[in-house]
Amino acid sequence: MSNPRPRPPSDSPPKAVVHRLSLYLRELQQLIRDGSDTTSSTQLGRLLGLTDAQVRKDLAYFGQFGYPGIGYRCTELVQEIKCILGTNEAWPVALVGMGHLGQALIGYRGFEQQGFRIAVAFDIDPGKTNRSIHGIEVHHLDSLQQVVRELSLRLAILAVPSSAAQQVAEVVAAAGIDGILNFAPVTLTLPESVHRVGVDLAMELEQLSFAVVNRARKS
Amino acid sequence: MSNPRPRPPSDSPPKAVVHRLSLYLRELQQLIRDGSDTTSSTQLGRLLGLTDAQVRKDLAYFGQFGYPGIGYRCTELVQEIKCILGTNEAWPVALVGMGHLGQALIGYRGFEQQGFRIAVAFDIDPGKTNRSIHGIEVHHLDSLQQVVRELSLRLAILAVPSSAAQQVAEVVAAAGIDGILNFAPVTLTLPESVHRVGVDLAMELEQLSFAVVNRARKS
Repeated sequence: MSNPRPRPPSDSPPKAVVHRLSLYLRELQQLIRDGSDTTSSTQLGRLLGLTDAQVRKDLAYFGQFGYPGIGYRCTELVQEIKCILGTNEAWPVALVGMGHLGQALIGYRGFEQQGFRIAVAFDIDPGKTNRSIHGIEVHHLDSLQQVVRELSLRLAILAVPSSAAQQVAEVVAAAGIDGILNFAPVTLTLPESVHRVGVDLAMELEQLSFAVVNRARKS
Repeated sequence: MSNPRPRPPSDSPPKAVVHRLSLYLRELQQLIRDGSDTTSSTQLGRLLGLTDAQVRKDLAYFGQFGYPGIGYRCTELVQEIKCILGTNEAWPVALVGMGHLGQALIGYRGFEQQGFRIAVAFDIDPGKTNRSIHGIEVHHLDSLQQVVRELSLRLAILAVPSSAAQQVAEVVAAAGIDGILNFAPVTLTLPESVHRVGVDLAMELEQLSFAVVNRARKS
């Protein structure tokens, strides 16, 4: 059996390596849908444009996987990566900000597919609070700390305007949230202990413009 | 001077390599903000958890950059990557779907920061069309083809419910759009000539859950 052995904290993987774990996970899930039982660092590398050495180095941060002469067992590696990412169990998530983005996210099905569930939402507008939207209760931001404790929430999605993001992030951090997914295109200044990930939607558009420009150059 | 030499089409880079170009671009922009004039494949690799060989291999898809004994000149490589990605000039983009997500995206400032501008929007709801939202004209989807031609649009953002995504994508493709950014967590079936990129918002949450779980394991 393969044996994940977390390295000591000083050897924490760079964020980009953790991001590639998500990419490996998606490729493995696709391979399984396509009927593959096993795969290799060469195949995973080819799917993601990585050298097989890079794939092995990435995975080696987290343990020893795979079997000599077999490679990686897809379903097993999926489970192990989910375990490493912490998504082997569902996460309840707080959604902060019930403007258009928040209301769009509350109906977004892509989260549940990967083990995240918006459990509760918050806003400061009395017209939006103390009611239920898409089955999710919306509370006033003032009750954030209490609800975070009651529901043992650790992750929050910040869907507030750029101008309010820093101030609201401080409230969220003070309430005991450990990780913030921030949609506002601003950098948050928060204690080191609070993890934050920014969503960069322009990056996906860059992939498109490359594809379109590149096709034009070819033709 | 460095000399980008596009390889023949058969050597098109994997999508993940193009995605890493965006990551290199962000790191270079940050290095410039931090006052760096030059960088190296080793430094870029360290920032992104890649071997220096992987960085050089990625960039070699697109040409020869960098100088012996100097490395890469940051501002020059930024310009060259933007040129490769096609973002050295601003792109006008069509936004399709003016529900909550569409209305959130129309106010999203992260696009313009990287050279994308929502030029026009579409919906099928007469209550939303033939008016202006955040200064952007909203037309009925019926006029998509005409507007796409008039404005020479090539990129579209699809912000419609999952249930409508395939049908609307076909309309968008038929109107002559070359690239679709799709927010619905469904796979679109379209002609090969239409490039599409799906937004996977759960991937960012996975980065957060990793950070939170990993910290808990350490403490």
